[in-house]
Amino acid sequence: MIRKPGILAKNLGLVFNHPQIFALALTHRSIGSNNNERLEYLGDSILGFVIADKLYEMFPEADEGDLSRLRSNLVNQTSLAELAREHNIGDYLILGSGELKSGGYRRDSILSDALEAIMGALLQDQGIEASKNWILSIFVNKLARLDLSSYKKDPKTELQELMQSKKVELPHYELIKMTGSAHSQTFNIQCTTLIMSESTTGSGVSRKKAEQGSAEKMLELIKAKK
Amino acid sequence: MIRKPGILAKNLGLVFNHPQIFALALTHRSIGSNNNERLEYLGDSILGFVIADKLYEMFPEADEGDLSRLRSNLVNQTSLAELAREHNIGDYLILGSGELKSGGYRRDSILSDALEAIMGALLQDQGIEASKNWILSIFVNKLARLDLSSYKKDPKTELQELMQSKKVELPHYELIKMTGSAHSQTFNIQCTTLIMSESTTGSGVSRKKAEQGSAEKMLELIKAKK
Repeated sequence: MIRKPGILAKNLGLVFNHPQIFALALTHRSIGSNNNERLEYLGDSILGFVIADKLYEMFPEADEGDLSRLRSNLVNQTSLAELAREHNIGDYLILGSGELKSGGYRRDSILSDALEAIMGALLQDQGIEASKNWILSIFVNKLARLDLSSYKKDPKTELQELMQSKKVELPHYELIKMTGSAHSQTFNIQCTTLIMSESTTGSGVSRKKAEQGSAEKMLELIKAKK
Repeated sequence: MIRKPGILAKNLGLVFNHPQIFALALTHRSIGSNNNERLEYLGDSILGFVIADKLYEMFPEADEGDLSRLRSNLVNQTSLAELAREHNIGDYLILGSGELKSGGYRRDSILSDALEAIMGALLQDQGIEASKNWILSIFVNKLARLDLSSYKKDPKTELQELMQSKKVELPHYELIKMTGSAHSQTFNIQCTTLIMSESTTGSGVSRKKAEQGSAEKMLELIKAKK
């Protein structure tokens, strides 16, 4: 059963001036050369921009690495396919018979491409502001659930990468003291690097936590010196 | 000698409502944590979008692969550094003493990042339309010089990739005839593929040209059947 694109547009809260461009956005390349690939290219670019801009505003404390990680987490294929499924986009795809038989309307790549193509079609039909508003509206829940802290690198990883970028030996962590009784021990770890004369220490209920603490202090030290 | 950002802004045809964000765009991370990296992230995203949108409009016949190649050719580090040099952006960079000594103001990566950061600053200061217009204005010569044909894949490569994507054996090229005298020969090549019952032939003054011609005809045949 072929469902009418107009119903999907309505469900998505969209009214197209040129309904044919919306239909094109749903047309997979298995149909022929008049397909949604150009619109997908366009949609991908406005999506990337709109999300980058929004994250910049939402997280004034995030550095560009955090922002990139947040963005790629929102606009990757899995995330887009999820949004496409929420809106039943698969039911409205226009697929060649081969893709139809093999269940292409369920495939992440096809769903994600179609969603991006819809964004491209909207941009062509109604301009930047309308596309931006619609993109933000369908991402509203994903954006609300974002938690910057979960995209931060842990301090040990960050310190290690910093050393690698400076092409010096990796940080050295050494257990300098253990305190407390057998069941409530505290580890004290010293972190040393070749780029700072000072060492830092961290303590915690596990060796790992103490190492992270010492790495965090080392990062602060390095940043203060910059 | 430190040159005033205001002079650069004027040379770039820009008047900022908040001059401090423009100064931030020129501030390299060697200065400290208040630097242009977030603005670069933002600028990179609007640049990618503006150029994608422009190419979509300029080349209605280009497929998404061509458009991607065209775009990455325009917005890569070398191309952006070239634009930065044209506008003497290096003279206005705010660099830490280490970068200053080692000639950071001449480095492609630093120049290209600063140009993107200026785009991000303009977006923050004046919104999407103003940024879009300015980006297009500085790319006007590069855009005018674009030639789609130089970004097209040659037919043999395109045909080979098509066969690979369909997971069938690669095309077969066979010399079927040579005509002409020793110093002005014409090669006639036949192209056969497993997905089409017909063969195609191409002719040319070299074997390679004849192969390309036969591949081009095969691609036309395949597209016509789609």
